[in-house]
Amino acid sequence: MPQLTVALDMMGGDHGPSVTVPAAAQALSLLPDLNLVLFGLEAELSPWLRRFQLDSHRRVCVQYCSQQVENEHKAAYALRHLTDSSMRNALDALASRRAQACVSAGNTGALMAMAMKTLSTLPGVDRPALITRMPQAGGGYALLLDVGANLNCGAGQLVQFALMGEQAARHILGISQPRIGLLNVGVEANKGNESVREAAQCLQQLQQTEGLHYSGYVEGDELFSGRVDVIVCDGFVGNVALKTSEGVARLLLGQRQQRGFLSKILTVWLKKRLSHLNPDQYNGASLIGLRASVVKSHGSAGSPAFLNAILQAVSEIEHDLPASIAHRFDTAPRDSHAR
Amino acid sequence: MPQLTVALDMMGGDHGPSVTVPAAAQALSLLPDLNLVLFGLEAELSPWLRRFQLDSHRRVCVQYCSQQVENEHKAAYALRHLTDSSMRNALDALASRRAQACVSAGNTGALMAMAMKTLSTLPGVDRPALITRMPQAGGGYALLLDVGANLNCGAGQLVQFALMGEQAARHILGISQPRIGLLNVGVEANKGNESVREAAQCLQQLQQTEGLHYSGYVEGDELFSGRVDVIVCDGFVGNVALKTSEGVARLLLGQRQQRGFLSKILTVWLKKRLSHLNPDQYNGASLIGLRASVVKSHGSAGSPAFLNAILQAVSEIEHDLPASIAHRFDTAPRDSHAR
Repeated sequence: MPQLTVALDMMGGDHGPSVTVPAAAQALSLLPDLNLVLFGLEAELSPWLRRFQLDSHRRVCVQYCSQQVENEHKAAYALRHLTDSSMRNALDALASRRAQACVSAGNTGALMAMAMKTLSTLPGVDRPALITRMPQAGGGYALLLDVGANLNCGAGQLVQFALMGEQAARHILGISQPRIGLLNVGVEANKGNESVREAAQCLQQLQQTEGLHYSGYVEGDELFSGRVDVIVCDGFVGNVALKTSEGVARLLLGQRQQRGFLSKILTVWLKKRLSHLNPDQYNGASLIGLRASVVKSHGSAGSPAFLNAILQAVSEIEHDLPASIAHRFDTAPRDSHAR
Repeated sequence: MPQLTVALDMMGGDHGPSVTVPAAAQALSLLPDLNLVLFGLEAELSPWLRRFQLDSHRRVCVQYCSQQVENEHKAAYALRHLTDSSMRNALDALASRRAQACVSAGNTGALMAMAMKTLSTLPGVDRPALITRMPQAGGGYALLLDVGANLNCGAGQLVQFALMGEQAARHILGISQPRIGLLNVGVEANKGNESVREAAQCLQQLQQTEGLHYSGYVEGDELFSGRVDVIVCDGFVGNVALKTSEGVARLLLGQRQQRGFLSKILTVWLKKRLSHLNPDQYNGASLIGLRASVVKSHGSAGSPAFLNAILQAVSEIEHDLPASIAHRFDTAPRDSHAR
């Protein structure tokens, strides 16, 4: 197999092939070294492939399958019964090393369950985390994890997220000593629930023993402040925080059509400032902690956003994030991030 | 005592009397029927009272005390040891019916613990909830609860929040049949943690038996969409969602000073659109489910925001929200909102 190969679940998300096929075509034209393996239902996928001339593209391999995962499917059901789905086949392509990364806009719970089954987690990692970038006031990004893969997290899991996030910030953001914050309802030591307070104690220890740069608690209004590079929380809280910021962006980008010349200028200006909070523009959370890179695209993503998710997968292959996380867990003492 | 009396904790928040005294003076000049009972440390409070001529105002009663609650204080410590604090005395004034509502910008955990101790909850309510308004895309507001008083909530508590929020929306928003949503990480029935899924089942039952208008799950990006009038969640998630929306507003209102004429116009326009997400402009969450109204002002509130919190307390006295919630819990079957 060639070096740079990404497996794509063409059926996931709200729009399916009408969004994923144009994005795939554009990725191929942007990156001359990229190879794609596409998975989907023939009846829906093949007309779009013909339309974008991907049915006979020399860097594209198409594999039709008989099932697809819907948003309504429970993870356990998908795991047991949807073994010939486009999602499962795309992950199997990673497990068999036919591809080095995979992108899906489908059901997060099913993606998580199937990825754990087919790829398994890295040694020391109990469960993968979903990580995404947040724009910061001074420019640049911070990483937020978990944003929806693990709804109830104990302290040990939060500590594992911190170690994974630290490596991700090194490789994705290029920050040599990332500052780690724990998302909480206040910054004082007595604030928060038990998991968060216990995780804070572990991270303080790791700061002394492992050189981790722990910056204490951060509140919701500091998610964009630039005070830390990695923000750690459980998946319920992270998912709500991420989607809330998208909701504010949509509220401002405006419900009603703007009338008048000045209003139109203002809206364009605002859209530019909000672009990184607008899910139609930015995209792509990654499941990290697995033996290969799995990128979760937003379910409502349009073609430009799905294209961004593919580019993110390529970037993770180039940085070999799984190997880097494996190395971090290999050197940090096991009991410090035990469950 | 006269009819309309509000007790004010003058020491709470980041700025103390320098913020609370000007706000009190303005409230008195706006509302000719309003009486205030002010609680604080003499050394800090009295110079400000003299400066704003409140030391001899005929509608003001000042009561000096010897302690104040700091943000670092644990709730249990405050409850046991800070019995002559400005916060505790303001709540005691409610318990003794010297005032009908109270406002504090102090430590939320201590306020919650002291309020439960001095006022106790209404029959059927296990714990009070902190509720606040969120601006909606189509204009108007929705109510979000809990935003930080209860960090871990079981299904029964979430159901109680729904019933309290329903009454609050009737009285505060003037909506006769409020639509209730449960905040979750997805809208499909299988999404979310156990508490949320169990609460959803109870609310579906109450829809049939009690005429509650349950609208299902809402995600973070729908907090401002206008789809529901009341959004129910646990206090950790609600606090992060609220502060995240404030963080986005601050990110946009801009870190750097805007240069140039057009940039200045744009910033003014944006500030106007964001005013209800900016904690310096709007203010005031209420602890509901108690036998009297307790308004929690934002800790970083300036004078205009603290004034808003006082006006909110007055409005809650006029609507007699506690009596209305008591009535709702009296008529709804007890087992439907059991713990």
